[in-house]
Amino acid sequence: MSEWFTTLPGLRSQVWHLLTHRDGPALTPVLATVGRDGWPEARMVVLRGADAAMATVEVHTDLHSAKVASLRALPRAALQFWLPQADLQIRLTCSVDILSGAEVAGIWVKVPDPSRQSYGITPAPGTPIADSLDYRKSPDPATFAVLSCAVQSIDAVHLGALHRRASFTRMTAWRGEWLSP
Amino acid sequence: MSEWFTTLPGLRSQVWHLLTHRDGPALTPVLATVGRDGWPEARMVVLRGADAAMATVEVHTDLHSAKVASLRALPRAALQFWLPQADLQIRLTCSVDILSGAEVAGIWVKVPDPSRQSYGITPAPGTPIADSLDYRKSPDPATFAVLSCAVQSIDAVHLGALHRRASFTRMTAWRGEWLSP
Repeated sequence: MSEWFTTLPGLRSQVWHLLTHRDGPALTPVLATVGRDGWPEARMVVLRGADAAMATVEVHTDLHSAKVASLRALPRAALQFWLPQADLQIRLTCSVDILSGAEVAGIWVKVPDPSRQSYGITPAPGTPIADSLDYRKSPDPATFAVLSCAVQSIDAVHLGALHRRASFTRMTAWRGEWLSP
Repeated sequence: MSEWFTTLPGLRSQVWHLLTHRDGPALTPVLATVGRDGWPEARMVVLRGADAAMATVEVHTDLHSAKVASLRALPRAALQFWLPQADLQIRLTCSVDILSGAEVAGIWVKVPDPSRQSYGITPAPGTPIADSLDYRKSPDPATFAVLSCAVQSIDAVHLGALHRRASFTRMTAWRGEWLSP
């Protein structure tokens, strides 16, 4: 049997296997957006869900964070994963829906208490404060947001002894093609 | 003596210490740009240099890569580092100069041969190919580019038992201020 990274279906399956059975670095990708000022932005996030059949992934955040403001203006994100054990970089391009309030109540009840501490900081994330600890956490479902990301394209690079790179797009039903790396 | 992450000068010093004595994850940040199509993009790069006094960092790439095309259209980049040993996320916002040809000849001669293999792929990176290995590497100084990144702002988050976040900007001579995390 050929190695997974030598065929397009093998590579695509491996991508979704790693995203759905996420642990280690697959749990903490980098989310890139375009700020309202037009500058690129990137920060680590926690991947909270992935659905291979729908080609969607899910990130939770504070509704008052800068990333939500950026995504309201331009609902597009790039997610980047480097998975050293697989020698694999995964790059997702996604359209993003920002969900909050009643539509995420069913998700909020399943968020464990330690994670809830991340939603509901006063003052809002990014606000200047006089001293480093001049903020308080008060978990609040009203400031909980779910970024529902519909993957539009996948770029996967396997950095083995030889480099292999492929692109898969929703528009071509994820058929895939090889790219020069 | 207080811990480095409890004061603004301590945090700023630590950021530059890690960027200039880079090893491990400090060597491979994620570079985010805005594509010519307006979509955010993110990929891992290798940090090849950092100068604390000038507040600049340097990345090497193939002149024909997508990131160079994006940066020609919008010469702005975000660099993101997650440094688990320091519990520190560093985010840099940079203006980027794309240098190539004669102006980087002095840098090219110092690039070791294994690294040179990354510059000069035929067909150009990202070109569709029929099979995964239908490309060849032919190191070529004409396709070597240096991204000279002038840091405009630094956002640093220390994710210790308590979270501390600070912002430093070139415009305010890197004085820094604390932010709600």
